Amino acid sequence: MTRLRPNISFVTLGVEDLQRSRDFYRAMGLEEHSRSNEHVAFFDLGGQLLALFPRTALATDVGVPAGSTAGLTTTLSQNVRERKDIDRLLQHAAECGGRVLKEASSPPWGGVRGYFADPDGFTWEIAWNPATVIDENGRVYLGES
Amino acid sequence: MTRLRPNISFVTLGVEDLQRSRDFYRAMGLEEHSRSNEHVAFFDLGGQLLALFPRTALATDVGVPAGSTAGLTTTLSQNVRERKDIDRLLQHAAECGGRVLKEASSPPWGGVRGYFADPDGFTWEIAWNPATVIDENGRVYLGES
Repeated sequence: MTRLRPNISFVTLGVEDLQRSRDFYRAMGLEEHSRSNEHVAFFDLGGQLLALFPRTALATDVGVPAGSTAGLTTTLSQNVRERKDIDRLLQHAAECGGRVLKEASSPPWGGVRGYFADPDGFTWEIAWNPATVIDENGRVYLGES
Repeated sequence: MTRLRPNISFVTLGVEDLQRSRDFYRAMGLEEHSRSNEHVAFFDLGGQLLALFPRTALATDVGVPAGSTAGLTTTLSQNVRERKDIDRLLQHAAECGGRVLKEASSPPWGGVRGYFADPDGFTWEIAWNPATVIDENGRVYLGES
C-alpha cells in the first residue's frame, strides 16, 4: 500500500512573468529540465522539482476564482504511485478537516490530479503522472521528454 | 565550495492557528519531530522538513510589515553548510534580480539566517544552523533535541 502521509514532490510557484522568473532561477544556478517548455519551467532539485507556472494558469488548474490569484500562489504537490491513491488522499484530507478543491481529473498536459486545501487554504496537489518516477524513498524524478 | 544553486530544505507554512494545523497534519499521518515545541511544529519528510509556524511570527522573522501577512505565507528555506554561504547566496540573489529582505543575522532560537525575495516576492530563507545535518546529496535532517 502506498504510504499516505504527505510528502512534497514538487513545489510550484505561480509566477507573474514566466520568462522573468525562468531567467532569475537560471541565473541562480538551476538547470532547466528537458521537459520544460513555453508553458512551464521545471528544475530538478535532486529528488524533488521546482516548477514555475504562470499564476493565472495555476489558478485555473486549481479551480480557484481569478481574483484569488492576487496573493502569491504556492502549490505543494505530492506524486503518488497509483491513480486511485489520489481519491484516497483527497478523501483522507477531507476527513482530517481539509477541503477538496478539485476531484481527481485530467489536465490537458496529461496525468491525473486533484487538489485540496489545508485549514489555512494552503493548496496541495495530489498527482499521478506516468512521466514521473518515484524511488523507494519517495523522491521523484521527471523522465526525459 | 558549497554548491550554491537553490535547494529546498524546509517548506514553512505560516499558519493562523498552530494547534489546528498541527492537528491536521498529524491526522494526515505525519509524525512530529522531537524538536517541535509550543512555538513551531516540525515534520520530517525524509531529507526535508515541513514546518508550521504562526503567520505573525513568520512575518516578524522575515521582517515584512504585519499587513503583509493577510495573504498566505510560504517560505522556502535552503540550509547551507557554512555561515558565510548565507552572505554569498544573498549577494548572488541580489545580483540575479532578487531583493534582500534581511541580511544574515541570528533569530532568538539560534543559528543564523537571512531572507531574499524572488522577482514575484516569493520568500527564500538561507539558513545555517548547527542543529541540522546536511548529507552529501544536500538533504537535510534535524538533530534530536
